[in-house]
Amino acid sequence: MTDVNTLGEFGLIEHLTQAFPITQPSTIRGIGDDAAVIDNGPFCTVVSTDMLVEGIHFDLAYTPLRHLGYKAVVVNLSDIYAMNATPRQITVSFAISSKYTVEALDELYAGIHAACETYGVDLVGGDTTSAPKGMVISITAIGQGEKERLAYRSGARPGDLICITGDLGAAYLGLQLLERERRIWIEHPEVQRNLEEQKYIVGRHLKPEARRDMIEAFRKADLIPTSMIDISDGLASELFHICKQSRVGALLEESGVPIHPDAQMMALQFKLDPITCALNGGEDYELLFTIDPKDTDKVRFLPDIYIAGEILDAADGIKLNTKGGNLHTLQAQGWRHF
Amino acid sequence: MTDVNTLGEFGLIEHLTQAFPITQPSTIRGIGDDAAVIDNGPFCTVVSTDMLVEGIHFDLAYTPLRHLGYKAVVVNLSDIYAMNATPRQITVSFAISSKYTVEALDELYAGIHAACETYGVDLVGGDTTSAPKGMVISITAIGQGEKERLAYRSGARPGDLICITGDLGAAYLGLQLLERERRIWIEHPEVQRNLEEQKYIVGRHLKPEARRDMIEAFRKADLIPTSMIDISDGLASELFHICKQSRVGALLEESGVPIHPDAQMMALQFKLDPITCALNGGEDYELLFTIDPKDTDKVRFLPDIYIAGEILDAADGIKLNTKGGNLHTLQAQGWRHF
Repeated sequence: MTDVNTLGEFGLIEHLTQAFPITQPSTIRGIGDDAAVIDNGPFCTVVSTDMLVEGIHFDLAYTPLRHLGYKAVVVNLSDIYAMNATPRQITVSFAISSKYTVEALDELYAGIHAACETYGVDLVGGDTTSAPKGMVISITAIGQGEKERLAYRSGARPGDLICITGDLGAAYLGLQLLERERRIWIEHPEVQRNLEEQKYIVGRHLKPEARRDMIEAFRKADLIPTSMIDISDGLASELFHICKQSRVGALLEESGVPIHPDAQMMALQFKLDPITCALNGGEDYELLFTIDPKDTDKVRFLPDIYIAGEILDAADGIKLNTKGGNLHTLQAQGWRHF
Repeated sequence: MTDVNTLGEFGLIEHLTQAFPITQPSTIRGIGDDAAVIDNGPFCTVVSTDMLVEGIHFDLAYTPLRHLGYKAVVVNLSDIYAMNATPRQITVSFAISSKYTVEALDELYAGIHAACETYGVDLVGGDTTSAPKGMVISITAIGQGEKERLAYRSGARPGDLICITGDLGAAYLGLQLLERERRIWIEHPEVQRNLEEQKYIVGRHLKPEARRDMIEAFRKADLIPTSMIDISDGLASELFHICKQSRVGALLEESGVPIHPDAQMMALQFKLDPITCALNGGEDYELLFTIDPKDTDKVRFLPDIYIAGEILDAADGIKLNTKGGNLHTLQAQGWRHF
């Protein structure tokens, strides 16, 4: 018998799905990107799905249900935007144990509702069931994209520039902070703690936003990224996905990786290297994309986009040029290797 | 605090989703039918999703994982067929505890694969995660339908004929039998039991099929049902959905409700009334639909379709005319009321 952990999440998906051929003429892209792509004439239907499990993806001790509902929607929309497409509908399914009251679910749905309003998507279906224990939420987002404008993970070419939106690492540090505060609270419930000063990083963890604005900016700038992925598992992991599927290498410049000052400070408090948090922290829901160098001027004047390296030949590997001028070979789980 | 059970599943969905407006021009139908319908020009995208929870929807003591995988797909496809549409793609997400091995998941996926092959659908995405306990499977099916041929729950009109495919109640009795055999096995593991004679009803529970053939027959017969729903929760519950959403009443003829001889026999063994099993048993995945009486001849010569009553005005209520000639008022959960 084989423990599923021997394969890892991506290995397991590959193992289980390798025997599934694509047979439908309307299936343009199946497993292996941020979302599946279904042909519908000039417009494609783009579908992405995520499952969140209590005790694995969220801890209700420090995640308000309203934030959980909001975030559960946003992480799915982020996958649709990462295809350079626009989400239009979602379905929400959940399984809950009897400990959840209607009022608790109302809070969850208030968050889902807020996300639907903010991003202009319709809730169009789902399933509701009981569970022996805890809560599982499964959301599917359905979007629309112009066939010619979709951005896959597989389109990066040597010479393309690597771009990153927003800033990275803050969501991970927000989570570290919440977990530390929770431990302190359990031991010393009498001590009042104030997280107000760390609003930015806590907010990045509890209430992330998807980069709808970027997809709209790309359209206005008449820019189509050559490849794109959303940063949910950390920059290193996402860069590996792009390099693997595009069959290229990459040189990432540490000096080009955007990190918020609050995240810098908190990393030092936790005795972590800020770049490590950006590379491996996850849950930032920013976009990693590549552009043809001839499009550099289109990006240069867009706010909140950072050029952070260059796509190389596959033979060159995937490397990080540190601020100190050292060249590190990046690992998919770079975290363990620094 | 309000226990979710006070609302019931349908009440809970209504409660949680009533504040969600439809804002997207492409959303033709949202919550409240077998599937959501999304406009894509002449063809619509039809989306349905289901969540199955270990210990609630399946018991691995008598459900082989391969059958579970097959069934999990089929129940979703059934929802797409119930819109008079054709499923093309599915996504499969699951959360599993560490007790599941890769080999166990291989079995599950072998069943999913068999269903994809049988029904000609592509697996195009999903999510894989760990869970503290048990297994949760969430499947979303995506289909395609011609806008003019879609059958909603809301289209039944007084005078329409009520039609049922296949036979009802057998899946429920198959489950009763499996549960009884399991209890006997726990108490007397030395006794060899043979379920071979009850292959039909056990198969109806463990390996149901969706009525793809009916949707194809409708097309050939140039028939569009005025309303349609798949029978997952029992005939009574589904007839209530159609009547509620079409704002009509119904007269159901007991003599017209198809019940397999093996199910008849097993019901008597369990001291159950066969019609009660058909009305409230669930998991048959047959189709309940209504037709304009002018289309009667189109249905008459199709195999495996039974005319079982007539749609009435809403004021007439929803009634069952028993074989004995008594008129019963049906309850949504008729089960408790016989």
